[in-house]
Amino acid sequence: MSYAAPIAEMRFLLDEICGLAELAALPAFAEATPELVDQILGEAGRVAAEVMAPLNHPGDQAGSSLENGVVRTPDGFRDAYRTYQEGGWNTIPFATESGGMGLPWVLANAVQEMWQAANMGFALGPLLTAGAVEALTAFGTAGQKARYLPKLVSGEWTGTMNLTEPQAGSDLGLLKTRAEPDGAGYRIRGQKIFITYGDQDWTDNIVHMVLARTPDAPAGSAGISMFIVSKFQVDEAGTLGRRNDIRVVSLERKLGIHASPTCVMAYGDNDGAVGELLGQENKGLHCMFVMMNNARLAVGLQGVAIADRAYQQAVAYARDRVQSPPLSGGASVPIIRHPDVRRMLMTMRAQTEAMRALNYYAMAALDRAKSHPDEATRRQANARVDLLTPIVKACCTDFGVETASLGVQVHGGVGYIEETGAAQHYRDARIAPIYEGTNGIQANDLLGRKLLRDDGTAMADLIAEIAAWAAGNDSPERASLTAALNDLRHATDWLLEQDRTEMAKTFAGAAPYLRLAGIITAGWLMAKSAQAARARLANNPDNRPFLETKCVTAAFFMQHILPQTSALAAAVTCGGQSVMALQEDYF
Amino acid sequence: MSYAAPIAEMRFLLDEICGLAELAALPAFAEATPELVDQILGEAGRVAAEVMAPLNHPGDQAGSSLENGVVRTPDGFRDAYRTYQEGGWNTIPFATESGGMGLPWVLANAVQEMWQAANMGFALGPLLTAGAVEALTAFGTAGQKARYLPKLVSGEWTGTMNLTEPQAGSDLGLLKTRAEPDGAGYRIRGQKIFITYGDQDWTDNIVHMVLARTPDAPAGSAGISMFIVSKFQVDEAGTLGRRNDIRVVSLERKLGIHASPTCVMAYGDNDGAVGELLGQENKGLHCMFVMMNNARLAVGLQGVAIADRAYQQAVAYARDRVQSPPLSGGASVPIIRHPDVRRMLMTMRAQTEAMRALNYYAMAALDRAKSHPDEATRRQANARVDLLTPIVKACCTDFGVETASLGVQVHGGVGYIEETGAAQHYRDARIAPIYEGTNGIQANDLLGRKLLRDDGTAMADLIAEIAAWAAGNDSPERASLTAALNDLRHATDWLLEQDRTEMAKTFAGAAPYLRLAGIITAGWLMAKSAQAARARLANNPDNRPFLETKCVTAAFFMQHILPQTSALAAAVTCGGQSVMALQEDYF
Repeated sequence: MSYAAPIAEMRFLLDEICGLAELAALPAFAEATPELVDQILGEAGRVAAEVMAPLNHPGDQAGSSLENGVVRTPDGFRDAYRTYQEGGWNTIPFATESGGMGLPWVLANAVQEMWQAANMGFALGPLLTAGAVEALTAFGTAGQKARYLPKLVSGEWTGTMNLTEPQAGSDLGLLKTRAEPDGAGYRIRGQKIFITYGDQDWTDNIVHMVLARTPDAPAGSAGISMFIVSKFQVDEAGTLGRRNDIRVVSLERKLGIHASPTCVMAYGDNDGAVGELLGQENKGLHCMFVMMNNARLAVGLQGVAIADRAYQQAVAYARDRVQSPPLSGGASVPIIRHPDVRRMLMTMRAQTEAMRALNYYAMAALDRAKSHPDEATRRQANARVDLLTPIVKACCTDFGVETASLGVQVHGGVGYIEETGAAQHYRDARIAPIYEGTNGIQANDLLGRKLLRDDGTAMADLIAEIAAWAAGNDSPERASLTAALNDLRHATDWLLEQDRTEMAKTFAGAAPYLRLAGIITAGWLMAKSAQAARARLANNPDNRPFLETKCVTAAFFMQHILPQTSALAAAVTCGGQSVMALQEDYF
Repeated sequence: MSYAAPIAEMRFLLDEICGLAELAALPAFAEATPELVDQILGEAGRVAAEVMAPLNHPGDQAGSSLENGVVRTPDGFRDAYRTYQEGGWNTIPFATESGGMGLPWVLANAVQEMWQAANMGFALGPLLTAGAVEALTAFGTAGQKARYLPKLVSGEWTGTMNLTEPQAGSDLGLLKTRAEPDGAGYRIRGQKIFITYGDQDWTDNIVHMVLARTPDAPAGSAGISMFIVSKFQVDEAGTLGRRNDIRVVSLERKLGIHASPTCVMAYGDNDGAVGELLGQENKGLHCMFVMMNNARLAVGLQGVAIADRAYQQAVAYARDRVQSPPLSGGASVPIIRHPDVRRMLMTMRAQTEAMRALNYYAMAALDRAKSHPDEATRRQANARVDLLTPIVKACCTDFGVETASLGVQVHGGVGYIEETGAAQHYRDARIAPIYEGTNGIQANDLLGRKLLRDDGTAMADLIAEIAAWAAGNDSPERASLTAALNDLRHATDWLLEQDRTEMAKTFAGAAPYLRLAGIITAGWLMAKSAQAARARLANNPDNRPFLETKCVTAAFFMQHILPQTSALAAAVTCGGQSVMALQEDYF
């Protein structure tokens, strides 16, 4: 159950797919020299492998627990967090004025993949902190930034997102938590559920970002505000004071990510939890989307990370396990030599690489959108990252589950035994299609906000770019990609042509459309990667095994995964009728 | 978490797909009157819903345990078994001379689906008993039959299969357990793993069917014999005597089916476990295949059963959970009205119905193969059931996992909480693609033994039958089915044409080929079902909601699932190269 960060692959994607050299040439990222990038990837890989990965299985088995109202994380987690914090690992992408390193998100993302792959139950804690930093950076007052940001950026404190209530999940308009002005600030009262790392034994303080309603707020999602509620109150000088009126009521018993405490939180049982408004009243959903958009890409990354961990474990087992002679006869061989086992491993590998390429590509667009000096480039990059965010979140996490499931299968009966560890990936992976907006919500977001709202402009730009790439080269992947792209064109045109007054049948195709777009975009990036690998092989074949593998994986993706596009296009363009036909009481 | 057996659907399949009327006209099944069939389905449905289903979730949470060498099943399981046994439920398909009811397997199968859906962890016990009955019926001496069969058929005792050893899983040729003649019989010594219900607290005795090697046996699978090893020795009169030298060493901690004790068994720690040879020496693998072939169809049925349970639970939640307004605006509605939730529910439903039809159809062929008076019909039916067995096992169980995973997704965050119960189905379902021969083994069986060995004759017969059906009617499903059938023809021809001296690339396509054949055969049965439903609606629309639903589900299957065939055919016919291309040390 060891883990080795795929550093060569990460570096390759940064160079060939993310345009790291071009990013490093921007004023914002002058620090991102090739040497520093290599150093960070190498050292993070070491920490992930040596510190976090060994705690993954024991952390799953022990789980976090609630003892006298206080969360205890599994043995070793507190020390691992100390290592993480002291190594400065929390600071990579954040602004230097808050103590961050100011490095590109693509680089932070590669490092983040290592933490998630090594120990998803652990890495969820810091991931939530990043969301709080984003929200405070975007909407905090100077005073709020001064008080909270440096400690959240350094990791001295952690942050959380408090959105869900029992009656308000996907539909946050239904939330009931109240925030009443008390002169100085607000008093928060209500119950929140599904609060990841709502408490922990790692840090002195936790900063909760809490959605609530002020007394005169309009109904629904237009009446939600965001509040900063600190576990311990923080004075102007940043010193910790009174314990706030917040309580962990219980922890959920979950299918997976057992190490990550999922808390039911009670705010204001006594005199009300003291909160500060973040941003404007009634604009909480906007704050949340800033916090969450990034988190959606990060959850997509979890899908990639778990898939890679499952793949590595399956390969190790398949090399080791001797069973049955090959088809040509003779003695029993390691099962990696059997064609169907190899098919499973290739599927796992190709899906993982393709989804990683998709995820990193979107992150590079985010860096351009945030930091490019040219406004037109920023706008263009922003449209691309907006379009890709739901695709990355849903497609990477669905493939994460499928890949983890294959990982169990490669192990045969042993995979079903918890001690082996393959089953943990299957359990852990299953949360990612659900949280930070279910994949159904992502599909609706893609179709409604990203495709229909701009009449297909952003999607047309992506299709045109892929088509231009395919037209401009004679790669072996070109024909498959062109055929698949026609499926995407066909489905896109169909969706744009539908009557917008009766949308149920159109939205019935949202999920297959998302997967279609995701597979094709990832297929394009795989083809680009293979072309880059061939060029490197021709010029300076430094790392022949890696480069040859990239070409094989791309070919496999074209033959085994990309052809799914025709069935997906069929589901979009002719499937809505049968989705909606059944009377509700006939189910 | 209640369960309602889909009795109308079962009865419909028995009539329209299994030809129950024709089966009941056979001399062997004269008892299977429509009234008796209805009575059995109705009463079994009640027992499944009232006795077994309520124990499913608590049984999962508690699990079986090993206390002082004795297995304790979860609270209530012992009483449930008593109800099961006293109701005569174990006896349905077995020969009347051993105390069975002698009813068709298709009927026993429908009842079996109810037990598996209601409580898979419980129902695994009786399922293994059925395997032992089959082996004893086929290979037992008159004395063995007299001593063991009546009590196994009645359920007074249970039976097990003891195949796997740590080094011998899929490759039973590697097994090491020894059987040494001791004058009267044999002494068995060795360790077996993954023994389902290797012990329990339900019955006075357990009859283990154990694979082992005699001292002079040839190496490999040609040197394996099967032995009857009874927990308590049984004398000629059938009276229980001395405790045999068998010990449960430990129970595995598994991903799912927690209630079912998966035992590590030690045979012959002391003076050797007393065993009787079943059938001939060195023919144990043949005995095992008789025992297992049936079990493979039954495991396929578990995939159907868990899928239906997951579907029922998801529908109940989707009707109940109010969240977000519809696309047309207004107040929040139950999520079953949202198109993407409906797409998931329709997918779950269509997959479940299609796999159920496939499974029941194969079981009907088994009844004909076993009991038809005409030899040619028996032979033909036998070829069909041989061809379909690996397809049923693998396709039903893969769809079982996919359906259970969708069931979690429909629930959103609540689905990830163990208390909800959706996660249990996702965990339980995952074993079925693994045990009784992994789905990769099934795919190899289909391609090697069922397709190539007879040069495609059995498959050609199936294709011809589907083609004739499609040619003979103008159903709305006809065009989709014909297109898909061309994919199957193309893939089949390609596989048959490959060079048989270099088979790795051919077998790389075994798994997609199996899924291709399964989806098309199931699609045909869905189309037949829809046609039958339309005919009933036109003539005597007794059950309009059920019949209309059948038509919608068939349409959904044609539009959303059947189109997968083109990608699968592509993977078979052009994918082998990329599966096998990567150097082993590059993974």
